[in-house]
Amino acid sequence: MNRIDSVNNEKIKYAVKIATSSSRRKEDGLFFLEGLRLCRDAALTGVKIRMAFFTEKAYEKNQEDALFISEKAEESHLVSVPVANKMSLTENSQGFYCLCENTGVLSEKDIDVKGKYIALENVRDPSNLGAICRTAEALGINGVILCGCCDRYSPKSQRAAMGSLLRLPVTLTDNLPKTLLRLKEQGMKLYATTPDENASVITKSDMTGGAVSVIGNEANGVTNETFAVCEKLTIPMKGRAESLNASMAAAITMWEMMR
Amino acid sequence: MNRIDSVNNEKIKYAVKIATSSSRRKEDGLFFLEGLRLCRDAALTGVKIRMAFFTEKAYEKNQEDALFISEKAEESHLVSVPVANKMSLTENSQGFYCLCENTGVLSEKDIDVKGKYIALENVRDPSNLGAICRTAEALGINGVILCGCCDRYSPKSQRAAMGSLLRLPVTLTDNLPKTLLRLKEQGMKLYATTPDENASVITKSDMTGGAVSVIGNEANGVTNETFAVCEKLTIPMKGRAESLNASMAAAITMWEMMR
Repeated sequence: MNRIDSVNNEKIKYAVKIATSSSRRKEDGLFFLEGLRLCRDAALTGVKIRMAFFTEKAYEKNQEDALFISEKAEESHLVSVPVANKMSLTENSQGFYCLCENTGVLSEKDIDVKGKYIALENVRDPSNLGAICRTAEALGINGVILCGCCDRYSPKSQRAAMGSLLRLPVTLTDNLPKTLLRLKEQGMKLYATTPDENASVITKSDMTGGAVSVIGNEANGVTNETFAVCEKLTIPMKGRAESLNASMAAAITMWEMMR
Repeated sequence: MNRIDSVNNEKIKYAVKIATSSSRRKEDGLFFLEGLRLCRDAALTGVKIRMAFFTEKAYEKNQEDALFISEKAEESHLVSVPVANKMSLTENSQGFYCLCENTGVLSEKDIDVKGKYIALENVRDPSNLGAICRTAEALGINGVILCGCCDRYSPKSQRAAMGSLLRLPVTLTDNLPKTLLRLKEQGMKLYATTPDENASVITKSDMTGGAVSVIGNEANGVTNETFAVCEKLTIPMKGRAESLNASMAAAITMWEMMR
């Protein structure tokens, strides 16, 4: 295995660029993962790993995982501690880093119209995006439709997603209402949650069969255009907390859909 | 109103000390809040405000709120921008700061045995603690029992709680199993969630009547001693996400309890 000792090595500079620049990620179709678990998840899921980097300590301590990852990677490098520190975005880096190719997306026509999906509209916080996808996978949601959200390939999103974003089928759209209407024509139910007390209470709705639940922006909720094509549901609230935060509301909505 | 221009002013140094030192908070029975909304919530809830600080800009922009807070505060000060920056723990500070006296706690014997409570055991992440309390209040939980958790008065906890920690009745214990057993003797049901598939599925349990649900530590879950006195419940999981994160699991558990 090659060894990289210089923080000025072109490969390291490139990995840092991908880790920190959303526009560069988009341009090159690559993303950066950090941590034993995420790197192993990428290898297990069949994500194409362009380069893998390990510190010597990490390699020795977790030889089986490191070997498995390096077998799947196009190229692998041992890196010095200063080089690892240059790539680390978190405080407790475990000495595992991968530069990966973007995962595939599921086209709209391959959505299983008998399945359960969530659509995230303008979710801007990468930790929310990741946490919602983690919950979606844990609860058995079939896939995620994204419209106008933050970069799902950012290290923050990937970290909060705990690997779920490497596995969950993702469909992209830049016109969510139109996509939703086409799915409705094929028999899917469409839901959007709102703090509006006049909406139907979520527990009273029959959520069986194929369905999509829309989760809106953290501050502004679901757009009017999207609301217009969905059945509005509300999670009954008490107390003075203005509302549940986006990821908690999403968890309860997905739970009710899968219950 | 007094004006403080020096970052070396003793009151400012003291406020910063309280904001940043958990042991000092404990010793002096005080905590620090930042942000218009939290400071207004404190004044609205009747929290004793020892000192309030406003930047001139904040005071002019939100005069009604600033007046209301300063009426409730024992003393109020206008502060310069450098002084405000010294006190600010977040990037987008709104120029509102309060030094408050600890809120009261609810003694164990005042717990409403017909009500719904959550017990947090060794929850260590202040953002989790805050987020769980925010959800608890939104869903109408009667109160929170804390054992071995991180400091609920830390600015991080208070921020994530969005004011709910100023309002929710809090009961403290250093022996959760004993506390729970005493509540059980008075007819309360006790639940603890676990990823263990052999536990009863949460949707199958009759959660009506007075009940306490225990949420455990982020990494290690509920302790064996506490499990021993509770009915074990599980949230059925699919996919490869190892488990829901602590605050998502708590949200679903509370939702089922209140449903």
